[in-house]
Amino acid sequence: MTIGVFDSGMGGLTVLRALQRRLPQERFIYLGDTARLPYGTKSPATVARYAVRLGEHLIERGVDLLVVACNTVSAVALEAVAELGVPVVGVITAGARAAVASGGPIGVLGTEATIESGAYVRAIMALDANIAVHARACPLFVPLVEEGWTEGEVPRTVAERYLGDLGPVRTLLLGCTHYPLLQGVLQQAAPGVAIVDAAQAVADDVVAATGLVGSDTAGNASASTGYLVTDGAARFVALGGRIMGHDLANVELIDV
Amino acid sequence: MTIGVFDSGMGGLTVLRALQRRLPQERFIYLGDTARLPYGTKSPATVARYAVRLGEHLIERGVDLLVVACNTVSAVALEAVAELGVPVVGVITAGARAAVASGGPIGVLGTEATIESGAYVRAIMALDANIAVHARACPLFVPLVEEGWTEGEVPRTVAERYLGDLGPVRTLLLGCTHYPLLQGVLQQAAPGVAIVDAAQAVADDVVAATGLVGSDTAGNASASTGYLVTDGAARFVALGGRIMGHDLANVELIDV
Repeated sequence: MTIGVFDSGMGGLTVLRALQRRLPQERFIYLGDTARLPYGTKSPATVARYAVRLGEHLIERGVDLLVVACNTVSAVALEAVAELGVPVVGVITAGARAAVASGGPIGVLGTEATIESGAYVRAIMALDANIAVHARACPLFVPLVEEGWTEGEVPRTVAERYLGDLGPVRTLLLGCTHYPLLQGVLQQAAPGVAIVDAAQAVADDVVAATGLVGSDTAGNASASTGYLVTDGAARFVALGGRIMGHDLANVELIDV
Repeated sequence: MTIGVFDSGMGGLTVLRALQRRLPQERFIYLGDTARLPYGTKSPATVARYAVRLGEHLIERGVDLLVVACNTVSAVALEAVAELGVPVVGVITAGARAAVASGGPIGVLGTEATIESGAYVRAIMALDANIAVHARACPLFVPLVEEGWTEGEVPRTVAERYLGDLGPVRTLLLGCTHYPLLQGVLQQAAPGVAIVDAAQAVADDVVAATGLVGSDTAGNASASTGYLVTDGAARFVALGGRIMGHDLANVELIDV
């Protein structure tokens, strides 16, 4: 089976990594739209237009299932992608489920587009209408991760400022695939809070959607993963390798 | 005369503002490619492709002169834009001239693409081969400005970290149109240093290129300025109004 995973850039590699570990026998194609990154400050119509192009390209390459690793696309354009004709798994439902399991009050962190869509709040309330949810857009987190400043004074100061507005929470839901890389400073800024990201829950949903038998033990990273980017292959290899924990091979530059 | 000014987003409004004050009788069309912003992390080939589309669109709308307000485009794609058939003024030469006039050692701050291109260092050395130049990419400055965090602890911490790497300078050249909005924290982080931005020098170059008679007194903001954006018109009006110091009218969303 060939599973297509796409994102606005390299943050979705955190989702790919979880999928590879759960489904070490399958083929993966990862597509990062690095030319147009970031999506989180774009309008829903523009995000949908780009997301459909990415999905169509992956379908042309023969994927059987699309995983929308990008929270912004999942929040504002999942329906448009779902009309392309293959099964689609997004990150919002999975993330909401993991956060509710962890317990409220829940703080949701995401890009401007994701938070403004209200998608996470709706998904959480659909699971538990009595849970308290506070949402906060954190537009500086993506550039911090892209800069490689994931530890130290700068990200800590930024995290404290964003979380300072949020109100007290028991669970922090990381509603952007870049944010797991800031887990350390987020935990410092919110000691004792449970930090949840959607990657594992997305892998559960993919196993359910495909009927494949997942592995509970971490397998070898998939032998068969191809990477497509729309710009900056060298930059993708450098930063993406940090996320995946190993050098990236099979990186192809495409125009889509 | 109709002068087209384009940028990856809204930072180029600092250049437009200087042009309007110098040439209050002329018509301006400003085009911000907000859908694809930021340019500073993209490859030169991709920047050139987008810049040519923007230039072509402005020429279709009848501009007599193109001002490339974006430092990244000026650094890596000015030649491609210059082939479109109307006179083109970029920001690199103007900025270098202003910095050399202020005196060395010069610190150049810009996006990754601008700094990696070496365009500012070359332009400065061409004017004075004996001047010391230190360049530093500051990728977090644009998102800070876009977030509206231009004062306080976060931008100060970021500025101190970037400038801490730079070495001692007499002049700081702001090689990105967003950076003038951080002038206050940059001056705090580098007390006694002269901070130079290219906007005034670009206006000098436009006056020279057109043969128009510039005004030394600040005129009324041009009565006749149209704004084009590729995404997020409401966001552009809100943030752009802060830069221009008045509400923006005539903002049109285009697909280019």
